[in-house]
Amino acid sequence: MGSVHAAFETISWRPAEGDAPARITLIDQRKLPEAEIYIDATDWLGAAAAIKDMVIRGAPAIGITAAYGVVLGAMASDASLDGIQAALVPVFDGLAATRPTAVNLFWALDRMRERLRTLCAEGVSRADLIEGLLSEAHAIKAEDIQMCKSMGDRGAALLPEGARVLTHCNAGGLATGGYGTALGVIRSAWQGGKLAAVYADETRPFLQGARLTAWELHKEGIPTTVITDNMAGHLMQRGHIDAVIVGADRIAANGDAANKIGTYAVALMAHAHGLPFYVVAPTSTIDMQTAKGEDIPIERRPDDEVTHMGGRRIVPEGVPVENPAFDVTPARYITALITEDHVVQGPNIEKMKVFA
Amino acid sequence: MGSVHAAFETISWRPAEGDAPARITLIDQRKLPEAEIYIDATDWLGAAAAIKDMVIRGAPAIGITAAYGVVLGAMASDASLDGIQAALVPVFDGLAATRPTAVNLFWALDRMRERLRTLCAEGVSRADLIEGLLSEAHAIKAEDIQMCKSMGDRGAALLPEGARVLTHCNAGGLATGGYGTALGVIRSAWQGGKLAAVYADETRPFLQGARLTAWELHKEGIPTTVITDNMAGHLMQRGHIDAVIVGADRIAANGDAANKIGTYAVALMAHAHGLPFYVVAPTSTIDMQTAKGEDIPIERRPDDEVTHMGGRRIVPEGVPVENPAFDVTPARYITALITEDHVVQGPNIEKMKVFA
Repeated sequence: MGSVHAAFETISWRPAEGDAPARITLIDQRKLPEAEIYIDATDWLGAAAAIKDMVIRGAPAIGITAAYGVVLGAMASDASLDGIQAALVPVFDGLAATRPTAVNLFWALDRMRERLRTLCAEGVSRADLIEGLLSEAHAIKAEDIQMCKSMGDRGAALLPEGARVLTHCNAGGLATGGYGTALGVIRSAWQGGKLAAVYADETRPFLQGARLTAWELHKEGIPTTVITDNMAGHLMQRGHIDAVIVGADRIAANGDAANKIGTYAVALMAHAHGLPFYVVAPTSTIDMQTAKGEDIPIERRPDDEVTHMGGRRIVPEGVPVENPAFDVTPARYITALITEDHVVQGPNIEKMKVFA
Repeated sequence: MGSVHAAFETISWRPAEGDAPARITLIDQRKLPEAEIYIDATDWLGAAAAIKDMVIRGAPAIGITAAYGVVLGAMASDASLDGIQAALVPVFDGLAATRPTAVNLFWALDRMRERLRTLCAEGVSRADLIEGLLSEAHAIKAEDIQMCKSMGDRGAALLPEGARVLTHCNAGGLATGGYGTALGVIRSAWQGGKLAAVYADETRPFLQGARLTAWELHKEGIPTTVITDNMAGHLMQRGHIDAVIVGADRIAANGDAANKIGTYAVALMAHAHGLPFYVVAPTSTIDMQTAKGEDIPIERRPDDEVTHMGGRRIVPEGVPVENPAFDVTPARYITALITEDHVVQGPNIEKMKVFA
C-alpha cells in the first residue's frame, strides 16, 4: 500500500530482553489526542484490564490483544504439557469476560485454544509450545492487516470519484492491527485519489471519532472534519456527504450489524437521504451462531463516561444516565457488507450464507 | 398550574434601588449544573453580550432578554422624545445582531419598536416612556409564561397515559419566561399524572440537555434520564420511547421547523419507528415571511464549543470542525405543531395559513 499506512503502533509484541519481561505494548487510546503514550501489559491480567478499561478498543484490536494475552498466560504458567490446557482455562475465561459484544474476541480466543490443543496433541516442548502460540497471535495480527488492505481496496472501488465520506467511531488503525476496516477503505480511497473529504462523528460518549479517527487520519494528511454526532443529518440534508462507511463489532446471520452506539442513527439518516451505507469488517466479525441483531448482547459501560467530560461533571448529581456501548443496524439499512473476501450487496439471511 | 413551576428565575427585571442601577438578572446557563449563579446586565450591551455568549439561550428567553435590553438602552439615552427613536436604532440593531436564527428575537424587538413609536406619537413624558417600554417587556414575559402553560396543556392532552417522552436540547423554563414549551408539555403531563419518564438528549456541543433540561426537571422531581444524542435510535428500537417533544427557534410558512442541531436526526428516527414527533412553540416563533426551511439562516457557533470540553481539547490541534447551531426538520416529519392557540396536525403550507 505504499506510503499510506498507520504512522503508529497500535499493538506490538516485545520479547523478553535483559531485565525486561516479554510484554504487549499498547498505545493508550484514552490519552489521545493529547498525548501519544504507550503502556505495557506484562501478564494476561494486564491484557484483560487493557481491553476492559479501553486502553485498546475496536473489535479486531481486542482480538489481537487477547491472543497475545493468552501467550503471556501460557508463559507464566508452570503447568506441564499434560496440564496446561486445564491451567489456562481461567486465562481464556478471564480474557473472554472483558467485553461481551465484539465477537472477534471470542473468535481469536477460539483460534488460540485450538492451536494450544494441537500443540499439546503434538507433544511439543515447552519452548515450542510458547513459540507456537506466539506465532498464532502474530498470524492473527498479520492476517488482520492483510485483510484490512483487501477490504480497503474492495470498499474504495465502490466509492465515486471525489467522495465525501462520513464515518462513525474509530474503525481505523487504532482499532485493528494497524490499517483499519472503515478507515482502511478511506486509506485506500485516499491513496487512489478518489477521496475528497472525511467527516468524523465525534462519537459520544468515549469520543473515538474526535480523539482517535481525527488523530490517525490527520497524521497522514487525509482531510478530516470533526462533527458532533447530531450534525450528520444536517450535512446530508445540505448535500455534503456521498457515503457512510463504518466498522462492526458483530454481524448476525441475517446481516444485522452491531457497532458503536449511534451507528444505527447514522444508518437511518443515510437511508432517508438515499446515501449508501457500507459496513466493513473481517469475516471473524460474522457470527453465524447468532440468528439476528436483537440476540447480540449489548455491553453497558460505566455511567461516568456519560456524566463526566474531561473530569468535569456535565449531568447533575442524582440524575440517571444510560450507556449502551453498541446498537444494532438492521440489515435492510446496509447497502453492502464488505469483508476481505466478499462484497455482499443488500445483505440478508440468504446472501449471508456465503459465510456459512 | 399549582405547584409545578420552574423553581428558579431565568430572567428578572430589577428596578434601581439605592446605589444599584436598574438591571436584568439572568441565570448563567453556562455554569449549570455545577453552580446556580445569577449575573446582571446593567446596559443594553450587557444584555446583547448575554444573548451572544449564551448566558441565556432559548428562543423565547432571547426575545424577553432583548426586550428588557431595549428598556436599558432607552434609560441610558439622553435623547429627547423627538430624537429617541433615531437614538435607539443602534440599540435595536445591536440586539438584533446577536443571534440570527431564533425569530422570536426579531419579533420581540419589533414589538418594542412599535411600542416606542406609539409612546413617542402620544407625546408622553420621559418617565412614562420608560415605564411604557418596561411594561411592554414585562408583558412579553408574562404572556410567554401564560402561552407556555396553554401549550403545555394542549400538548399533554396528546400524550398517552404513562408516556415515556424524549426531548432534545432545553425548551424549558430556562429557555423561556419560566415554564417552557416542550418542557411545558412535560410539566403539564407530569402534573396530570400521565408522564412515566423523560429521556433528555445531552445535546452536543453545548449540552443543554445534560446540563439544563436534566437540572430543571430533576429540581422538580420529574424522572429524567440523560442519554447521549446518538442513543435515541437504540432506545426507540427497544421500545422505550412513546413520543418526541421539542421546541423550535423558527418555523417557516410551510411548517418546516428550525431547532437545535440534532433535532432533525431525532425526527428521522421517530419517523422510522412510527413515533409521534411534536414541535411546541409560541406563535411568535412562526415566520410567515420565510417560505421554507432552507431559507432560514443557520447560525454557525465558535469552533471551541466542539473542540474542547470542560477546558480539555478533545479534537486534535489542526483538525477543522463544523458547528452549525441549528438544523431544519421538514414539515413532513412533524406529527403536530402545538402553539398557545392551535394544534396543527401534519403541518403543511395550507394548514399553516391559520397563522397568516
